[in-house]
Amino acid sequence: MSKKPLILVTNDDGISAPGIRTLISVMNEIGDVVVVAPDSPQSAMGHAITINSTLHCNSIEVDNGPQQEYSCSGTPADCVKLGINEILERKPDICVSGINHGSNSSINVIYSGTMSAALEASIEGVPAIGFSLLDYNWNADFESLRNFIKKITLTAINKGIPNGNALNINFPKLKENEIKGIKICRQAKAHWIEKFDKRINPQGKEYYWLTGEFINEDHKNDSDEWALKNGYISIVPVKFDMTDHKNIEKLKDWNF
Amino acid sequence: MSKKPLILVTNDDGISAPGIRTLISVMNEIGDVVVVAPDSPQSAMGHAITINSTLHCNSIEVDNGPQQEYSCSGTPADCVKLGINEILERKPDICVSGINHGSNSSINVIYSGTMSAALEASIEGVPAIGFSLLDYNWNADFESLRNFIKKITLTAINKGIPNGNALNINFPKLKENEIKGIKICRQAKAHWIEKFDKRINPQGKEYYWLTGEFINEDHKNDSDEWALKNGYISIVPVKFDMTDHKNIEKLKDWNF
Repeated sequence: MSKKPLILVTNDDGISAPGIRTLISVMNEIGDVVVVAPDSPQSAMGHAITINSTLHCNSIEVDNGPQQEYSCSGTPADCVKLGINEILERKPDICVSGINHGSNSSINVIYSGTMSAALEASIEGVPAIGFSLLDYNWNADFESLRNFIKKITLTAINKGIPNGNALNINFPKLKENEIKGIKICRQAKAHWIEKFDKRINPQGKEYYWLTGEFINEDHKNDSDEWALKNGYISIVPVKFDMTDHKNIEKLKDWNF
Repeated sequence: MSKKPLILVTNDDGISAPGIRTLISVMNEIGDVVVVAPDSPQSAMGHAITINSTLHCNSIEVDNGPQQEYSCSGTPADCVKLGINEILERKPDICVSGINHGSNSSINVIYSGTMSAALEASIEGVPAIGFSLLDYNWNADFESLRNFIKKITLTAINKGIPNGNALNINFPKLKENEIKGIKICRQAKAHWIEKFDKRINPQGKEYYWLTGEFINEDHKNDSDEWALKNGYISIVPVKFDMTDHKNIEKLKDWNF
């Protein structure tokens, strides 16, 4: 690529989160950066989009970097739609989302605003990567990830992400020199056992907080959970075709 | 099955929508029905869940039917989590979601609250079906679908939905006697070209409405779009493993 790549950056923790600030800073070393990100936290928004209310989008300046930034009232998927179709003058060369404060490995991908942004870009034909760190702290150590993120993004730009895929990349909570390497993986089979914490509000009305326990049922060594637990960065190619092709013939036997 | 099946019913258009009222009425002919559905419309919520705010859930009575009903402040996926883990005394035999007012065929599955509810049930090991009618009218003709919905649900209970799958079922906007049959399909390759309708509010501030045009790039006769266009009901088996397994080897060639 002779010109500098045009890079769309977004996230789900909101435009001021430390994770996206590190990601913007790394992307500024690679290309021309435009940020379109939510004005408030949008974690666990899945692939929600805003169709029954209005969207606001404001040009803002956060630091002294060369990037353009837009703060948007919508979901992560809205931000990508706005970025690609309204704000950017040409299709970006890549869309990066994150760095998420917390894991998006395994089944978490389906609830993830970070990954829904990346998938939305891939639906629109833009190569995309979601980055997440297995640390929910607001002040997690994102700086340790700089070299890996730069290397992975440059490789993705040069080699090309397979059509119709977005990469779901999770980092273990380790220092840079403790990370053993990078593994290409599949999504582990796992689920959450929900627990609803039932409380009574000052008016005497019941309400719930959703909590839960993550259960990994999958102990094979080609899954993202295995890689992360063993000190590796996990990369899972994720697709937006949700058809379970192998079961189409099985269902044809239902003989409607 | 000797006992009556226990059926969890939900949707994304809200508990008072005509689509879910028809679905509840059909399910009452099949089994014991518990409804846990959003108290307000939650269309296009994707797989959002509520983790940063509280959830309310109230037992309500809507009509004189035998079903139990709960109106919930959360998303469709929240309703299913609440239903299975907090409200129902045993795991339901099936979860049905809908009938959605509008299409969830093709790429719409990824934005769909109706299908996220069904997928959430399948993640929790409960067989699940999402039903949608290609008619956005509040007073669409859901009655024409009764016989098909009953037949499909009974078949799914008897034959068993493949593990890890939810069925995405869309009905063309036709009279019962005009429907040609039922086709097992794959998700068509299609996307939306977004158009943002930019307006100025009374305070002089810009805002947007998201609109768009649906583009079907897929003209093969095994897709859901083809089936619906040709007068058939489409059934797509949908899975929550989003890994693109065929591209794992390709990415290994990146040689990290």
